[in-house]
Amino acid sequence: MFESAEVGHRIDREEYRRREPALRAALLQAQLDLAALKRFPVLIVVGGVDGAGKGETVNLLNEWMDPRHIDTHAFGAPSDEEAERPRMWRFWRVLPSNGRIGMLFGAWHSQPVLDRAYRRTGSDRFEQQLQEIERFERMLADEGVLLLKFWFHLSKKDQQARLKALEKEPLTHWRVTREDWHRFEKYDRFRKVSELLVRRTSTPAAPWIVVEGVDECYRALTVGETLLAAMRQRLDGPGTNPPSATPTPTAQPAPRLPAIDQRDVLSMLELDQPMTREVYEPALALLQGRLNRLSRDVKFRKRAAVVVFEGSDAAGKGGAIRRITAALDARQYQGIPVGAPSEEERAHPYLWRFWRDLPRRGRFALFDRSWYGRVLVERVEGYCSEADWRRAYGEINEFEGELDAHGVIIAKFWLQVSKEEQLRRFRDREQVAFKNFKITADDWRNRKRWAAYHQAVCDMVDRTSTDVAPWTLIESNNKLYARIKVLATLVERVEQAL
Amino acid sequence: MFESAEVGHRIDREEYRRREPALRAALLQAQLDLAALKRFPVLIVVGGVDGAGKGETVNLLNEWMDPRHIDTHAFGAPSDEEAERPRMWRFWRVLPSNGRIGMLFGAWHSQPVLDRAYRRTGSDRFEQQLQEIERFERMLADEGVLLLKFWFHLSKKDQQARLKALEKEPLTHWRVTREDWHRFEKYDRFRKVSELLVRRTSTPAAPWIVVEGVDECYRALTVGETLLAAMRQRLDGPGTNPPSATPTPTAQPAPRLPAIDQRDVLSMLELDQPMTREVYEPALALLQGRLNRLSRDVKFRKRAAVVVFEGSDAAGKGGAIRRITAALDARQYQGIPVGAPSEEERAHPYLWRFWRDLPRRGRFALFDRSWYGRVLVERVEGYCSEADWRRAYGEINEFEGELDAHGVIIAKFWLQVSKEEQLRRFRDREQVAFKNFKITADDWRNRKRWAAYHQAVCDMVDRTSTDVAPWTLIESNNKLYARIKVLATLVERVEQAL
Repeated sequence: MFESAEVGHRIDREEYRRREPALRAALLQAQLDLAALKRFPVLIVVGGVDGAGKGETVNLLNEWMDPRHIDTHAFGAPSDEEAERPRMWRFWRVLPSNGRIGMLFGAWHSQPVLDRAYRRTGSDRFEQQLQEIERFERMLADEGVLLLKFWFHLSKKDQQARLKALEKEPLTHWRVTREDWHRFEKYDRFRKVSELLVRRTSTPAAPWIVVEGVDECYRALTVGETLLAAMRQRLDGPGTNPPSATPTPTAQPAPRLPAIDQRDVLSMLELDQPMTREVYEPALALLQGRLNRLSRDVKFRKRAAVVVFEGSDAAGKGGAIRRITAALDARQYQGIPVGAPSEEERAHPYLWRFWRDLPRRGRFALFDRSWYGRVLVERVEGYCSEADWRRAYGEINEFEGELDAHGVIIAKFWLQVSKEEQLRRFRDREQVAFKNFKITADDWRNRKRWAAYHQAVCDMVDRTSTDVAPWTLIESNNKLYARIKVLATLVERVEQAL
Repeated sequence: MFESAEVGHRIDREEYRRREPALRAALLQAQLDLAALKRFPVLIVVGGVDGAGKGETVNLLNEWMDPRHIDTHAFGAPSDEEAERPRMWRFWRVLPSNGRIGMLFGAWHSQPVLDRAYRRTGSDRFEQQLQEIERFERMLADEGVLLLKFWFHLSKKDQQARLKALEKEPLTHWRVTREDWHRFEKYDRFRKVSELLVRRTSTPAAPWIVVEGVDECYRALTVGETLLAAMRQRLDGPGTNPPSATPTPTAQPAPRLPAIDQRDVLSMLELDQPMTREVYEPALALLQGRLNRLSRDVKFRKRAAVVVFEGSDAAGKGGAIRRITAALDARQYQGIPVGAPSEEERAHPYLWRFWRDLPRRGRFALFDRSWYGRVLVERVEGYCSEADWRRAYGEINEFEGELDAHGVIIAKFWLQVSKEEQLRRFRDREQVAFKNFKITADDWRNRKRWAAYHQAVCDMVDRTSTDVAPWTLIESNNKLYARIKVLATLVERVEQAL
């Protein structure tokens, strides 16, 4: 893998001086076009061997281009806010928005490689991490991110020579630390693990570009021209939509069973359920008490809970959520109402806004609508392409899998009312002044698409009800019943998890 | 202070039921108007005694209004990302933007009150904190934030009765914790400290509204109607600009000395300084080595550094910054290029964007332009009102004082070139393709206002060069000299601080 980066690539200084000005000018122009068009973000990942010019390259690109449109990030030990969330959270939070360039000095691959090289993880775990990385990068590419990954390589001999040379010179002596030498001793192991990483995560959507790090002129021109070519190709390409990295053939239509007998998970629900206020009041207080005790359980301090509410319009999501929050300490939960995405949110991959709101340990995040918008409203109203919502099922399962792997308890509720009950509630809302705001033209329009939503919900439940994150369907014609079922289910899920 | 909140305020349920629908409808309307106009944000602070209905009020307002435009936050123990930054950082990061309502369950007053009541701080420190709070709230008001502070009060007898009642009822038993009783034992001390807080921080711009917490109907109507009146007053008020909370008479013109002899800090600089490349190269490497060692000093792990670069256009800020970053580990610094504020940034108080970028412990933040934009470009170009930039001097000193109090080392550089040297550099930039982007119509326009900028810089240095955050003026006609002086000054400041 690295052999072709050990052949002594070299550009002489004269030639470099000749080519550099045009390259800089072209890179700047590409950056200006990128910023003007705001069609996609560029994410540059910098990895590789110490002393192979990673830092110099980051500095050089910042010097060549306009640093006001570049966000450079390096990653040390995670902060507690980072450590208390799934591993990828710290990378999600720094993703560049459309029109900007993000430069990551080390990224999601770094820790897995270190852990494996120092034998803190076994080969099975590493294999699993490679697959995660591959899926994550494919998702970025599918979302339109132009992802460029540079691996800076030095042969063992070259790295030793480089470290020694730096050390000998009094003025650069400080650049070499004990840690550098310590890592050098493990060179062979690093190389083996790195080779596996580079091979396994070099996909058509996001290949590693291996750069020999000995000669700074060669290094600089290679990185600069690769970056320029990739940016120009996308900038000059057709259309405003980023080309999908997932080849279309694989995006086959999901097996949608024609519900010839009209039986499906939704239509099988008995929406009218009995519950009187006499039963409701004590049951509510009892369940709230249990939830409160669970929330203060020492075991919950190492966990967190993500609770998702989706449902027909006027199905009572807000009321159900308030019955949960009433049982919790205000410092322990965050209610997250999800509306149409803001400009900033639209300029990022669609899961970005939800990653931002993930709870820290010991806390609840209550989502009033969620990432399922993509396979519900966005699908039905055509706000995204069919390819987008089709691949969303897998991405969502992946996302929830990461939450689960991090110890986050997931509960998802679909609140369903009958078409008649919805109409009753709409009319009621129209007549009461303070409920008026709850009923808009959108609601009436959605109602007209009842059948399409019905199908979308059934598909969603089929495709995303997993062991770690099952859907619970809530019969909601009776609000009291719905609230109790939600609370009881949540209490049960948390109890089982602790 | 609290006596009038112990008189047994009460609204009977019938009357409440009569008044509530109209109040809800009006509050919703106000919220819709707020969101549509996006002229200012509303910040509701909820403080007071346990059991007096703080949580219920937060829930109620979320129920009455549209929760999609409300951000509710409660504050537990600070995370390390919060603890490693100045005390107010966690509040800055959750400030609502124009058009939104932020609800803070406990806020900047909570910890000082607790610390004082438990005698962890003395009266001097508490006094100092009260002044900080007062200044902070005045700044918010000046920036157009509609700040409403509700203090929920219960007499000692009422609090005891309330806790006992909750405890006795099996269904609400869980709501009372040992901590509640523990705090109750300290009731008298809390009351005394709280009275001082409420009295001292009840300013015309942001008075505390003391609400008797016994009767939930009274409580709800009081909060709702106060909020409604305050919102309506601002919404229906004139103009798009928020009224300044600082009374105009106090905003007296700063004593601007007519520089009748043309002598001032800038014109006294000898801009042409000698420095050859033979001296520069080894000096640079030496200083970079020293800076690198300082950055790895164990003592620096508890500190942080904020380095501000301002200067004439084409004075060489970017080049000076790169000579610093070349000496640092990429994980240890963040370069922050400051351009025109984004839409989101404009919708917040002007210091908000800078608070977001403050460094954690052990790190450097390098600002390429900064909060001084307000007293430079915004002043000269008239992007803000005279009152705004005049009060900015004080706010900036306050802000930097908070950084210093938190152990942040501050270095501020003004890079000055002569008008002739600037012209030379402009022409050079126009001729070299890859420097072309660096020269815009703005630069030529700014150049025409040379004298106005000159005056603004002199005022800025006069007003904001403080002991903890002095300005260093850099003679920059010779770039090599400028870079060495910047590095040497920074090294010296960090060395002295450690």
